[in-house]
Amino acid sequence: MGERLLVIGGDAAGMSAASQAKRLRRDALEVVVLERGPWTSYSACGIPYWVAGDVPDADALVARTPAQHRANGIDVRLRTEATGIDLDAGQVEVRDADSGRQRLGFDQLMIATGAVPVRPAVPGIDCRGIYGVQTLDDGCRLIDGLRGAPRRAVVVGAGYIGVEMAEALLRHGLEVTVIDQAGEPMSALDPDLGRLVREAMEKMGIGLVLSTPVEAFEADASGGVRAVAAGGATYESDVVVLGLGVQPETSLARAAGLPLGARGALRTEASMRVRGQAAVWAAGDCVESFDRVSGTWVHVPLGTHANKQGRVAGLNIGGRDAAFPGIVRTAISKVCDLEIARTGMGEADVQAAGLSYVTSTIETTTRAGYFPGTAPMTVKLLAESATGRLLGAQIVGREGSAKRIDTCAVALWSRLSVEQLMMCDLSYAPPFSSVWDPVQLAARAVVGKLVAGEPVAAEPVTGG
Amino acid sequence: MGERLLVIGGDAAGMSAASQAKRLRRDALEVVVLERGPWTSYSACGIPYWVAGDVPDADALVARTPAQHRANGIDVRLRTEATGIDLDAGQVEVRDADSGRQRLGFDQLMIATGAVPVRPAVPGIDCRGIYGVQTLDDGCRLIDGLRGAPRRAVVVGAGYIGVEMAEALLRHGLEVTVIDQAGEPMSALDPDLGRLVREAMEKMGIGLVLSTPVEAFEADASGGVRAVAAGGATYESDVVVLGLGVQPETSLARAAGLPLGARGALRTEASMRVRGQAAVWAAGDCVESFDRVSGTWVHVPLGTHANKQGRVAGLNIGGRDAAFPGIVRTAISKVCDLEIARTGMGEADVQAAGLSYVTSTIETTTRAGYFPGTAPMTVKLLAESATGRLLGAQIVGREGSAKRIDTCAVALWSRLSVEQLMMCDLSYAPPFSSVWDPVQLAARAVVGKLVAGEPVAAEPVTGG
Repeated sequence: MGERLLVIGGDAAGMSAASQAKRLRRDALEVVVLERGPWTSYSACGIPYWVAGDVPDADALVARTPAQHRANGIDVRLRTEATGIDLDAGQVEVRDADSGRQRLGFDQLMIATGAVPVRPAVPGIDCRGIYGVQTLDDGCRLIDGLRGAPRRAVVVGAGYIGVEMAEALLRHGLEVTVIDQAGEPMSALDPDLGRLVREAMEKMGIGLVLSTPVEAFEADASGGVRAVAAGGATYESDVVVLGLGVQPETSLARAAGLPLGARGALRTEASMRVRGQAAVWAAGDCVESFDRVSGTWVHVPLGTHANKQGRVAGLNIGGRDAAFPGIVRTAISKVCDLEIARTGMGEADVQAAGLSYVTSTIETTTRAGYFPGTAPMTVKLLAESATGRLLGAQIVGREGSAKRIDTCAVALWSRLSVEQLMMCDLSYAPPFSSVWDPVQLAARAVVGKLVAGEPVAAEPVTGG
Repeated sequence: MGERLLVIGGDAAGMSAASQAKRLRRDALEVVVLERGPWTSYSACGIPYWVAGDVPDADALVARTPAQHRANGIDVRLRTEATGIDLDAGQVEVRDADSGRQRLGFDQLMIATGAVPVRPAVPGIDCRGIYGVQTLDDGCRLIDGLRGAPRRAVVVGAGYIGVEMAEALLRHGLEVTVIDQAGEPMSALDPDLGRLVREAMEKMGIGLVLSTPVEAFEADASGGVRAVAAGGATYESDVVVLGLGVQPETSLARAAGLPLGARGALRTEASMRVRGQAAVWAAGDCVESFDRVSGTWVHVPLGTHANKQGRVAGLNIGGRDAAFPGIVRTAISKVCDLEIARTGMGEADVQAAGLSYVTSTIETTTRAGYFPGTAPMTVKLLAESATGRLLGAQIVGREGSAKRIDTCAVALWSRLSVEQLMMCDLSYAPPFSSVWDPVQLAARAVVGKLVAGEPVAAEPVTGG
């Protein structure tokens, strides 16, 4: 073997990079992957559905096993943790259960260390019975915890993970309370659409405690969590799930002096090469991504980006010339039968950027109004006043609503105006859509406001 | 009133134009609509679902009634037929049931005469029991015909209307045979995807007689159809539905000397003004549209275009400056639980245009592979070899497959390459998609072929 590629982290980003590089350079490249856990290439996004019982076991969430990667010539080392990076020496310090500490040399280094759940710095956070849901190990621990027939759960945080876990625990038969500092759940949405999510969750029987920070976790005599203190009240709880989102796991990168952005994520070129480094690459939940809509660098830890970025890094390590072109901040989720999606900038983003904008929110249906099974959906669009350029889209609705966000995502990607989006040739038949597609109906409403010459400077306009 | 706008045809295109023009010019414009039938603004696309019993009656398919239009100041005249256009005199010859013939003057003329079902020129075509499904009147006649408890139906033509009507008649309890000249159903798809539709229809119990022209309709003693002769065989049939598509209804326009394209559809500017005319406009199923992908003018009679084109004409008549930017030939349909969608060019189109291209077809799933309810879907993409530009997309699959075509439609609209489509930020969560969206998986397969330098000149490549 000529060179060695050392990959830290064996999930989506790391294994995508490893696979592409190995495929292209074969015997000319030794690829060693260090993975802290016992799994590779798994779907962390599937954990809520595993907890809910939709998915039978952790193995179902594994897209490619260590054995499958090894069959492709990749040296996967499980339960093996990188504990330090020595850039000058070109070595990584490694600890595993069997052989203890050692140093491994590299010619190319791929950092795919992912992210870790945000843990609130409040008393009692280390009680037994408080779970993150970021890795399959986390999922195993939570599912073990649920075997003790708990009655009440508190989810801390009402973002994507929080609402998905609320559904999972509800379906598990628990009484569920979600606590969040924000005034509405799903702060990735504007509050007017967040309100729709709140109302739907309340109807599902999920308790919501909003505008309320968690103050402490209280333990019983055995050290297990028994209640959550928040906003002066106490919420009894046998299980706590942390749904506060994640922060990049870049402690090794930081210690090695690699460049980090405002949120602590690694800064890379479009090639996924770490800035200022010739032979160090990074991808996935531990890096910043360029937001094509706002023109800023952001930290958006999602499996889609991890896969694409890892692939780009691997192609480049393999000698190709690939670039990751950035993101538009598309995301989708559901809580029971309510679907939720967003892309681009929200009102707070637009206001922070000082852009003058117009917005419209419409209530429509997923199918032709007269078609059986048609269901309500709400679409909100934002456009720049001066140019009509689409800035963002948000959808909340019943089955068949949310995936329509992709239409807006491609429009944002291509910098279409709302007028152009309105005139696109989208598909129509009564079982699938109204004749003016829901997204285009919303675009029409925004175009109407733009034409009427009623631009709004840094102040929301909703309804329409 | 200053000017008079005369609109011929009271469905989507005509009423969209009438509504926009009236809204903008109010009392300064008299708007008179001549409609041959008794309805306005109805969903012809809903007829198969009305026949199937999904929709209770014709009224449910009416988006806006004559009375509602009249309340907006539009003079809607039902059961009133235009029989001639005198451009020099600025008059239309009109026939109605009450007052017989008269001439109505116009300052602006909007032609929205739509389309009529193609009727094969074979013996017996005028038998009782042979139905088109283009207008609500057609739908009424067919539903009346089904009251006689027919046992067997033949659908002539296996395009969108044909497959939708096959489902409708099947659900009505009839034994259904579909006869088509082509080798596979859904000739809007490439034959390899048409095959998937055929196999699914056969499993549904629909008889398919392909590569077979209809030769004659045979009548019983009372003049009602009793069988269809095709390819030397005879198919007994109590009801025949014509699903051969439609041709533009432009006999008045032709007689008036207005410019028609190759398929007999009116030629317009992007403003929807008829070419060479100052005060004559046209929109909907009777006009040609510019295909942005192939750069040619085509006849694509769909309600989506009719609505948008009618709106553009009305805005221009109303004094605004609007343009219809063309289409990308997106269409969607379903037959029972099989969803079908396409956009852009197919292989035959690309070959006819002399373009060198690459194509790939992938088998994937509608949700994460491990998610309950995940279902198979097939995605085929075509790209130009030299540039990688996306040329077309086709999808056949189970619930949740087809509407994803809109992602490709916006990509085509924006002239994205398959590489760009592959890297777009599409939404992902396990209930909605695999982590590489199905469309992006297909794009990856095409990109792989483009990179490998295996362009295909005028010859299909499938699989991948």
